Parts: sequence; structure tokens; C-alpha cells
Amino acid sequence: MTPKKFEPRDESYESRVRASFDRQRAMHTIGARLVRVEPGEVELELPFREDLTQQHGFLHAGIVTTVVDSACGYAALSLMDRESAVLSVEYKVNLLAPAIGERMRAIGRVIKPGRTLLVCTGEVIAVAGDTESVVTAMQATMMAVRGRPELVD
Amino acid sequence: MTPKKFEPRDESYESRVRASFDRQRAMHTIGARLVRVEPGEVELELPFREDLTQQHGFLHAGIVTTVVDSACGYAALSLMDRESAVLSVEYKVNLLAPAIGERMRAIGRVIKPGRTLLVCTGEVIAVAGDTESVVTAMQATMMAVRGRPELVD
Amino acid sequence: MTPKKFEPRDESYESRVRASFDRQRAMHTIGARLVRVEPGEVELELPFREDLTQQHGFLHAGIVTTVVDSACGYAALSLMDRESAVLSVEYKVNLLAPAIGERMRAIGRVIKPGRTLLVCTGEVIAVAGDTESVVTAMQATMMAVRGRPELVD
Amino acid sequence: MTPKKFEPRDESYESRVRASFDRQRAMHTIGARLVRVEPGEVELELPFREDLTQQHGFLHAGIVTTVVDSACGYAALSLMDRESAVLSVEYKVNLLAPAIGERMRAIGRVIKPGRTLLVCTGEVIAVAGDTESVVTAMQATMMAVRGRPELVD
Repeated sequence: MTPKKFEPRDESYESRVRASFDRQRAMHTIGARLVRVEPGEVELELPFREDLTQQHGFLHAGIVTTVVDSACGYAALSLMDRESAVLSVEYKVNLLAPAIGERMRAIGRVIKPGRTLLVCTGEVIAVAGDTESVVTAMQATMMAVRGRPELVD
Repeated sequence: MTPKKFEPRDESYESRVRASFDRQRAMHTIGARLVRVEPGEVELELPFREDLTQQHGFLHAGIVTTVVDSACGYAALSLMDRESAVLSVEYKVNLLAPAIGERMRAIGRVIKPGRTLLVCTGEVIAVAGDTESVVTAMQATMMAVRGRPELVD
Repeated sequence: MTPKKFEPRDESYESRVRASFDRQRAMHTIGARLVRVEPGEVELELPFREDLTQQHGFLHAGIVTTVVDSACGYAALSLMDRESAVLSVEYKVNLLAPAIGERMRAIGRVIKPGRTLLVCTGEVIAVAGDTESVVTAMQATMMAVRGRPELVD
Repeated sequence: MTPKKFEPRDESYESRVRASFDRQRAMHTIGARLVRVEPGEVELELPFREDLTQQHGFLHAGIVTTVVDSACGYAALSLMDRESAVLSVEYKVNLLAPAIGERMRAIGRVIKPGRTLLVCTGEVIAVAGDTESVVTAMQATMMAVRGRPELVD
């Protein structure tokens, strides 16, 4: 699918995403960083850490999912109006190759920005020296949540 | 689907699962415990921790996915012969309710034990006082990997 | 997951499901029948037909998906209030075994009846003589659609 | 994900795909046509037909799934060696918009050509006059099946 250009509904979209990311304590715990915020597209980075691996020494599939879920969720949040927060509804993940390398780039993109539901695709790219390879593909649904004051950004 | 009873192909299935779980460093990092191992069914437990939350204070969907992916993977491993290791191929996760509570019970079950591919369902149950509620449903494919000596259990 | 009992919000749920099924022209074309309607659970039946097969002589995976998607959609519709119609948001299907036999039983069940989104599981059981075997597992999200008069049941 | 160029392992890949498509009787029944075969990418076309609709007059989601599943399966078959047939393992479908229009273009692409498992993405584009819009996104796993003489192409 050709990536689309989206118009943000809230011009402070980037600062909202950055502030929300800072409140995601799981991101701090696993060491993920917010790299890039554009309307409808967000990139995170996760340096490889041995304490996040599964039994074969690869990053655990769930940890990789954690960063690409956040990337997709923030891609959706970047298109929200001021009154809406975002929740993950569901996602599907294909693990294409072992998640090994110096770091993972997790990119989330909105492909369908509905008023209530936003569909996103995500990919995780392992970076090892000069080599980049896609290790994970995600297809996800995010939901815009309105009128629930306990759920902010 | 009615849960089935399976015959393990390797009588040391429980010790294999326990030894492999101990090598999953991500499980230690997030504080998950292995609760129960039966042929084709495994239960893990994740106590709630604030440093694993997303921006609204719920456990991050990816962290919940991490434990239920491991539960499904070990449900598959419990049915492997001695020569086979297990890798996650793909999974689909529906987030039914916010993951809050004192702890999460993550249960993985094999529903189709093919020779190469095993299909599993998983669920995560939030425990809060006397109340249990299903917060996550997974449908996953695991792969038996043979003849790759670098991939053990 | 233990199947739950649900209270219908509209006591005419069964006649609504039956009337809507009769309008699904694709169901007539492939020869599917509505077998059973309960609150939150619907069963359809598809007799095997050679003109619905793929290249190996099995029922095409998409045709099997068609009946189990309708079963899940009608399981959701059976729990709707009078003002709401249902649309499929997304589904994930695992093809566990070839869809061969005299007929397929497709069963859809609601596992989470949210106000806007309903999560369902579906299974397709191949019937061959006295033997029944699960050939397909689905995990799906359905959406309650309100205030769109062009979308009725 | 940037589409890749793949080298076919069997130079007669196009005639194999075309011959197999002709044996998919479900394709004839719903009126689908094979439009384009390239190594790792296949396009089918489905003219709109009222006898394939659901209750609101849109093409049934399962019918749309049927064509894009075949497109993905044939994208995988186009990369197979002579000894391998293809089966669908699983797929996830997001329904982005109602499937209405004069015809649907269903495009399947391999994104990871493993020896046993091939991961594909698919999309369905509704064509109405001069307008094209993506109505469905698929992420699928296909399996290369060897040594089973009853399963040919």
C-alpha cells in the first residue's frame, strides 16, 4: 500500500505523542526511545539488551511486539483531535526472522484513519552494522476513545 | 473448542519446559513465573508492576502479549519430541479489557498439534481480589524446528 | 474460555438474525443454512459442493471463512439493541486441516460484548459420516453501528 | 515495506499459477479472473455481483477474503520449486471500507519467502469509475508442501 500523507487534526500532535511516550513506563523499563513523529507515522528504537531475550538469545517476540504496538498506537494518536485518547483493540504479528542485531527500528503507520477505528501497519527492522532487515510485520486496529476523562493521551 | 488431552512425546516434557523458561531472560526481567505445565497446556503468572504500564496505568499490551506468547510457546514445547525446539511464527491478540489487577494469569493451550506447525489459543485473566476476568485472547501458530543445533528448547 | 450466557437486549433477536441472513445473498449462492440462533451464539451449515473448492479439492479457505464470518457476525447481532446493525471489523483465521467432508458446521460465539466492539471466536467443524473434526479457528472483531439508516441489521 | 524483486525457482512459474487457478473451481463460481503473475506478486480481479453480497449490499467480507487469499497463495506458488505445492496456514484481514464498486482488484505479495513458510501481504482495491480505494488489508502465512503427491500446485 502506498503510504499516505495525513493532515493532523491537532497541531500539537508531536508534543502530545512525546508527552504520552514519556508516561509509558514500560518503554523506559525496556529502554525504548522515540525517534520520529510525523502525522500518521511514528518510529521508535529499541537497543538490543540480553535481559529482554528468549531462550535462544533473540529478543523475545513479545518485547518486539511491545515497541511496534507503541509505534502504531502513537501513529494513531498523532492523528487524533484534542478530545481523543487511543487504545489498542487488536493486532496480528508475523515473526519473519529472529530479532537480533544492535538495535530494532519499530515503525508504525496509519493506513486507514477512521473516526472511531484506525488501522495501522507496523514493521520492525533489525539493524546490524550496515545491514537492515525486516524481522516483524504487524497489522493492528487502534480505537479513538472520547469522553472518558480517566483516559488521556 | 473443547480442550483435548494430549500424550507427550517426551516424558521429560515438564523439566524441559522449566529449564527453557529459566533461560528466557525476558521472563525474569518482567517478573513472570511458571505456574503449571501439562501436556499441551501451560500457565504463567505475571504480578502487576507499575514499571510495565502504558500511559493510562494499565499493563502494556505488549507485556501481556509477552507472557501469553511464552505460555503458548511452552504449551507447544510440552508436546515436542526430543529433537525439536519451538519458535513463534505469528499471533493475533485481542485486547478485551484493560490489564489491571494484582496479577495476570496467562494460559496457553495447543488446539492443533501438527508435526511442523502447532496452533494454540491463549488467554490472559486479570485477578483482582476474588474477581477474575479475561482481558486478552490470543490465537497463535508455533513451529517445531528440527536439525538446527543452535536452537535448543 | 468458558462460554458465557448472555441476555439479549432485543427479545426479537432470533427473527432479526433470520431476516438478515435471508438478505445475505452470498449465503444463498454458496448454499449455507442458518441452523441455530441463541443469544451470543449462532450456527450455520454449509454442505460440501465441488464448485466451491480450491485446486486440491478442499473447500476454499475463503468460502469457509465466509460462513464462519457470518456465524460470528450474527452471534454479535443477536446481542444488539434495536438501533444497532453489525459490521465485521477484522478477523484472523487459522486453517487447521483441509475442509473436506459432507458438510461444515460453522459456529460463532461472542466472548466479549462491548458496547461498540464485540469480540467473537468461531470454529468450523467438518462432518464426515460419524466423525467431526475442527478444521478452522477464527478470532474476530465486530462493530455495532448506530445512526446510519442505510445500514439495517 | 518496500516491495522486493524475487527470482523464481521454476521458470515455468506463470503457467503453473495459471493452470492451478483454472482448477480452483471457487474462482469460476464467484467470477474471479487472473490478471497478472509476477515472481512473488499476483493480481486477481472480481467484478461486483449482487449474488455475492451481504445484507447491506456490500460484497461479503468472506468473498473478498476468498480472492485475496488466492492472490496471496499464488504469489507464494510463483516462488516455489517444482516439487512444492502451497497451502494457506492462516490469515488476518482488516475490512477498511465497504466492498462496493464495479470490481475489486486483489493483489497478493510475498514479503518473506522462507523455505517452508512464506509471509504475504494482500490488499483489495475497489474500483468505481476513475476512483480506486483500498477496502481490505491481509497479512497471511502460506506453507510450501513437499512430498505429498496428492497435493499438486
